[in-house]
Amino acid sequence: MSSHWGNHLHLSVFGQSHGPAIGVTVDGLPAGFPIDREALSAFLARRGPGRSHLTTPRGERDEVQFLSGLKGDVTCGAPLAAVIENRDTRSGDYAQLSDLPRPGHADWTAQIKYKGYQDVAGGGHFSGRLTAPLCIAGGICRQMLGSCGISVYAHLLGVGAVSDRVFDPMGETGLERLEAMPLPTLETSAAAHMERVIVAAHQAGDSVGGVVECMVQGFPAGLGGALFGGLESRLASILFAVPGVKGVEFGAGFSAARMTGGEHNDSFVAEGGQVKTASNRHGGILGGISTGMPLVLRAAFKPTPSIAKPQDSVRLSTGEAEQLHLRGRHDPCIAVRAVPVVEAAAAIALMDVWLEENGRGVWI
Amino acid sequence: MSSHWGNHLHLSVFGQSHGPAIGVTVDGLPAGFPIDREALSAFLARRGPGRSHLTTPRGERDEVQFLSGLKGDVTCGAPLAAVIENRDTRSGDYAQLSDLPRPGHADWTAQIKYKGYQDVAGGGHFSGRLTAPLCIAGGICRQMLGSCGISVYAHLLGVGAVSDRVFDPMGETGLERLEAMPLPTLETSAAAHMERVIVAAHQAGDSVGGVVECMVQGFPAGLGGALFGGLESRLASILFAVPGVKGVEFGAGFSAARMTGGEHNDSFVAEGGQVKTASNRHGGILGGISTGMPLVLRAAFKPTPSIAKPQDSVRLSTGEAEQLHLRGRHDPCIAVRAVPVVEAAAAIALMDVWLEENGRGVWI
Amino acid sequence: MSSHWGNHLHLSVFGQSHGPAIGVTVDGLPAGFPIDREALSAFLARRGPGRSHLTTPRGERDEVQFLSGLKGDVTCGAPLAAVIENRDTRSGDYAQLSDLPRPGHADWTAQIKYKGYQDVAGGGHFSGRLTAPLCIAGGICRQMLGSCGISVYAHLLGVGAVSDRVFDPMGETGLERLEAMPLPTLETSAAAHMERVIVAAHQAGDSVGGVVECMVQGFPAGLGGALFGGLESRLASILFAVPGVKGVEFGAGFSAARMTGGEHNDSFVAEGGQVKTASNRHGGILGGISTGMPLVLRAAFKPTPSIAKPQDSVRLSTGEAEQLHLRGRHDPCIAVRAVPVVEAAAAIALMDVWLEENGRGVWI
Amino acid sequence: MSSHWGNHLHLSVFGQSHGPAIGVTVDGLPAGFPIDREALSAFLARRGPGRSHLTTPRGERDEVQFLSGLKGDVTCGAPLAAVIENRDTRSGDYAQLSDLPRPGHADWTAQIKYKGYQDVAGGGHFSGRLTAPLCIAGGICRQMLGSCGISVYAHLLGVGAVSDRVFDPMGETGLERLEAMPLPTLETSAAAHMERVIVAAHQAGDSVGGVVECMVQGFPAGLGGALFGGLESRLASILFAVPGVKGVEFGAGFSAARMTGGEHNDSFVAEGGQVKTASNRHGGILGGISTGMPLVLRAAFKPTPSIAKPQDSVRLSTGEAEQLHLRGRHDPCIAVRAVPVVEAAAAIALMDVWLEENGRGVWI
Repeated sequence: MSSHWGNHLHLSVFGQSHGPAIGVTVDGLPAGFPIDREALSAFLARRGPGRSHLTTPRGERDEVQFLSGLKGDVTCGAPLAAVIENRDTRSGDYAQLSDLPRPGHADWTAQIKYKGYQDVAGGGHFSGRLTAPLCIAGGICRQMLGSCGISVYAHLLGVGAVSDRVFDPMGETGLERLEAMPLPTLETSAAAHMERVIVAAHQAGDSVGGVVECMVQGFPAGLGGALFGGLESRLASILFAVPGVKGVEFGAGFSAARMTGGEHNDSFVAEGGQVKTASNRHGGILGGISTGMPLVLRAAFKPTPSIAKPQDSVRLSTGEAEQLHLRGRHDPCIAVRAVPVVEAAAAIALMDVWLEENGRGVWI
Repeated sequence: MSSHWGNHLHLSVFGQSHGPAIGVTVDGLPAGFPIDREALSAFLARRGPGRSHLTTPRGERDEVQFLSGLKGDVTCGAPLAAVIENRDTRSGDYAQLSDLPRPGHADWTAQIKYKGYQDVAGGGHFSGRLTAPLCIAGGICRQMLGSCGISVYAHLLGVGAVSDRVFDPMGETGLERLEAMPLPTLETSAAAHMERVIVAAHQAGDSVGGVVECMVQGFPAGLGGALFGGLESRLASILFAVPGVKGVEFGAGFSAARMTGGEHNDSFVAEGGQVKTASNRHGGILGGISTGMPLVLRAAFKPTPSIAKPQDSVRLSTGEAEQLHLRGRHDPCIAVRAVPVVEAAAAIALMDVWLEENGRGVWI
Repeated sequence: MSSHWGNHLHLSVFGQSHGPAIGVTVDGLPAGFPIDREALSAFLARRGPGRSHLTTPRGERDEVQFLSGLKGDVTCGAPLAAVIENRDTRSGDYAQLSDLPRPGHADWTAQIKYKGYQDVAGGGHFSGRLTAPLCIAGGICRQMLGSCGISVYAHLLGVGAVSDRVFDPMGETGLERLEAMPLPTLETSAAAHMERVIVAAHQAGDSVGGVVECMVQGFPAGLGGALFGGLESRLASILFAVPGVKGVEFGAGFSAARMTGGEHNDSFVAEGGQVKTASNRHGGILGGISTGMPLVLRAAFKPTPSIAKPQDSVRLSTGEAEQLHLRGRHDPCIAVRAVPVVEAAAAIALMDVWLEENGRGVWI
Repeated sequence: MSSHWGNHLHLSVFGQSHGPAIGVTVDGLPAGFPIDREALSAFLARRGPGRSHLTTPRGERDEVQFLSGLKGDVTCGAPLAAVIENRDTRSGDYAQLSDLPRPGHADWTAQIKYKGYQDVAGGGHFSGRLTAPLCIAGGICRQMLGSCGISVYAHLLGVGAVSDRVFDPMGETGLERLEAMPLPTLETSAAAHMERVIVAAHQAGDSVGGVVECMVQGFPAGLGGALFGGLESRLASILFAVPGVKGVEFGAGFSAARMTGGEHNDSFVAEGGQVKTASNRHGGILGGISTGMPLVLRAAFKPTPSIAKPQDSVRLSTGEAEQLHLRGRHDPCIAVRAVPVVEAAAAIALMDVWLEENGRGVWI
């Protein structure tokens, strides 16, 4: 169960952080779509480490090898499989963790569930590194959606107490600029401020949480469905699968709970023969179905649990309290590298919904 | 896709608000569990309308008929099917909505998706009434979990700007008292305050949103899994299927994004030979797997979109702007009746997870 | 798991033979298809008992009540739910079976699996009666396929040692005549012969097996897929779910194993600009994908296990051997009433495949 | 859809015959099971080419690389991924097939479905080579079942007109001897006879079909379920996914259709406090649930469609009839190498059923 997702697109994510390779299989991609491999590499590089001094220096480039699903660079209808070899691993760093679990990490729960058989090194299958294969699948889906005029962009809305401005829910232009920014924000000052907060946390041997906001423009009205087939349900099921996500909201989200209906409802207006809404607190989704307005969602990431500061833990073999002193290379703020991951997750979910409506067939 | 959920428990929810009946099938329930039908009726009554002056006066009692899955009142291993007949329906109230969609409702998106073939009356398949069959399934799962010492309780954490105190994430006692309260809150004063807010909204021809917080105690450590098999992912996929939910968070949730790792991580402590956490900001889940600490989650509900106040809409047949004047009976705050619905959704998801670990077999 | 099927169409079958009702939910049917209820009743009547002296006299008419999924008689996009009430049940007939299991029946295996909690009356959830809801779903799918020019017909190919001629795999015309025949055969003499065999078995307190052959004409080329997505795999998974089926084959089937490649391969020919095969031993499927030639499949049904003849069994409570003397009303040849059931199963599987290719959308 | 299977074990098979690699992911394997890699290699070697002069000389050894799912050789709870690199490929042999499809092959149907985007080389994703990853997954499941005392063995029951004796459905001993035989038969004379038939077909530029019979001993009673959860349904869905399978039957299978109930029903007998059946025409399955008697099933394989003899085809680009002269290396009888594939498919399906009953947990 841990690695499988999808109804019309079947995703299977595999790998352990320090195993031979991590990867993904994607079944259900229409045949005939030419993958832009350079653009895919650029997308993956946004998630990759070492992009700035704000991320872990673990120096590996995520080089994707496609094992199947392509003829040249064009999807051939067969399931796509792609892997990334793990290279720069130092498993020694993790040896102690099976006996002295890191607070905020899966070390302890994996031990309970798998009774010592789990692969601890680098977080094993629970590592944030598993978001790389998600980005392969998501990067391809994002390209496919893009070729239909559907764009998927995210930015860092918050880091600790610092906030960027929110997306204008009625739409934005020029979002491609976000892709080139180490800290993708709408306001430049926010990025500078966030950088200071992250550096400070790192220097204090600590880490900091963040919020990623994502907007999808061009998604057609009428896709999704009621109840479990609703867009929120399907998007959330993949967003919450991203390690570190502790909250997801759509449109006005939690703030909707504090509004009245009169404040929250978006009026319908006719614009050039088309029905739209005059505002977009509903985040592009009503009754689980897209309205044609931009989809807007937010995911809250907890602070990186691995911090240099001493922490209280328990040595499992003795049952004694013991302080944990972590070494190793860790991002001081996982939300930074999570920005393209949120885009990937959204793109996968929306591609699944798109295929539900349009069938598999051959990509035109 | 719209009505199917589950991996080990297969749920299928059906019905339209003003059709002959609504119902649910549940496949995968272990045989040999005696359903307490009186307790189930009481659970459904908590969701039912007409429980106080704060809910719609639509006067129907949700009388459950079991069509299959039982021998007497004991599960027999065959799929369970249960229906509730729709009685007190006044479809006339809804006749205009197919042409003049209600802001904030699925009228418009259903029209786009189903091109006029959808059943509009009472919201059709998009009605909040579909949460009744969810409560049948969830009420049974909650009983099953209860027989294993796992309790599932929710309260109204917020209505508009009014807040109850949050659950003590380390655990609470005496939560069964919430079941008897029309406005289930931890602090009595909060209920009184909320009532005033709801009444005021209603009198103003308006409605108000709210937040439901749910806590699961006694859930064993080690259940769930990484990525898509994680508890957050599976719980969220069913919570976001509940009409009106626009945000879901676990543990510290969105506030975790504003913390540092040192503030957010929960230390491990040994207590009488058992490993626990000294605090519970993680909401009982690490790496998608339960820690044995109470599970804590929150769902944000938007304000009821159906309000008496005039609203701007568009007459679809003419494309002209037109004001909508809604009549009909509507809850001024859907969060109130959603309290047991959140419990039901959580219980279903956790029963699915429980069966994954323990197998189907026969209930002991 | 026992009652759920489908990837694009989600079927959930429920009910026990002597419970309040049996039924089915079908999620994923496109909106806008007008169900011909009279034709559906006629289809169900073909499966119904009491159609001739060759079937059980259990006198119930399978009256279908639609609980959801329709507006009038037109699909509305919401999941369809339909039930048939159980009326003419005599559970007393079955009282002894929980302790003295019938050879060839599920009495014993259900007892092992469900440890006494199973519903024994009338075979419970294992009854052939559960094929009625399958026929509701299948009858609707067959109408939908029919409206696209795809016809699904079956006949009794064999009863005991008596054989009808096989379908001409290159195509047949006038197959609608089969619908009116109590023993649907291509050669009239075969029906007469079969009738004698069935009557003789019945008079001897025995029963007899049979083979049903099904042909689908008009199914477009290019649907299905490799491996688990193949037409054979998906058709077989639903055909083997029909109680009593012990063998399934496609095209030349088991006889292909005795051929050489030169004998078995069907040459390609160009006919009026279209590529076809000159013969159809492949049964319309190559590599799991339809070729555009008629689909041909056969399902072998075992003889009705419930026979009047004394049989050796074991009294479970004492562990002593004991002869079983069955009363009750049983078909002497289940294959007879299984003819429309095979059509229904095939139609459901093909509708699922059709939706995979064409998407859900609205029926044109 | 083409590559995904399973409810409790999630299989995803990928690869094209002449692509970089073929492989499989398996999610849901319990942690803590030590894989015997030598035994797994020996199992794969039984499927491998070049084992005798009766199989294709394509000289590649199927060397398995595990990318994830293991710690050392022990399952770690994370999804298992395994790949086999493709080495000895000569794609030139296949260049013409996209325009001149081979009778009996997927060339034509893949062209219709994927409109030229499919990978034709070596049969692409439709190649029998894809059974190698199935054997990796199946070989591991077979070892797991084996460690519970459940054995899975198959033999060549028929090649063309030559037959081995059938398994004694009440049980066999010494079946491990089949593993060492190039043509695994119960009677030595059958193997010699089959060899002559295969050699003769090969020399005539032809091929020949065959039947594989499989028996599972030690499978506990009470596993499986009614309808779609039945053992026949689940086994058949994976068996028919094996390229070349055109028929599947259980127990008496098609011959049951020619019997009376009195002939076919297996009496119950008490033996040392245990209930058994005195014969086993039911093939170990009643009502979709295992009886504890050996499971017996047969799969019919069509003759290899690729034959050296000239065959009639159509040149797609011109629409003209043209004779096809195939070169390349092909097995004259795919049933030979399919023997372990049938074992693998059965083992996977039964492991899925086993997990349904017993839950995932950790392997003891």
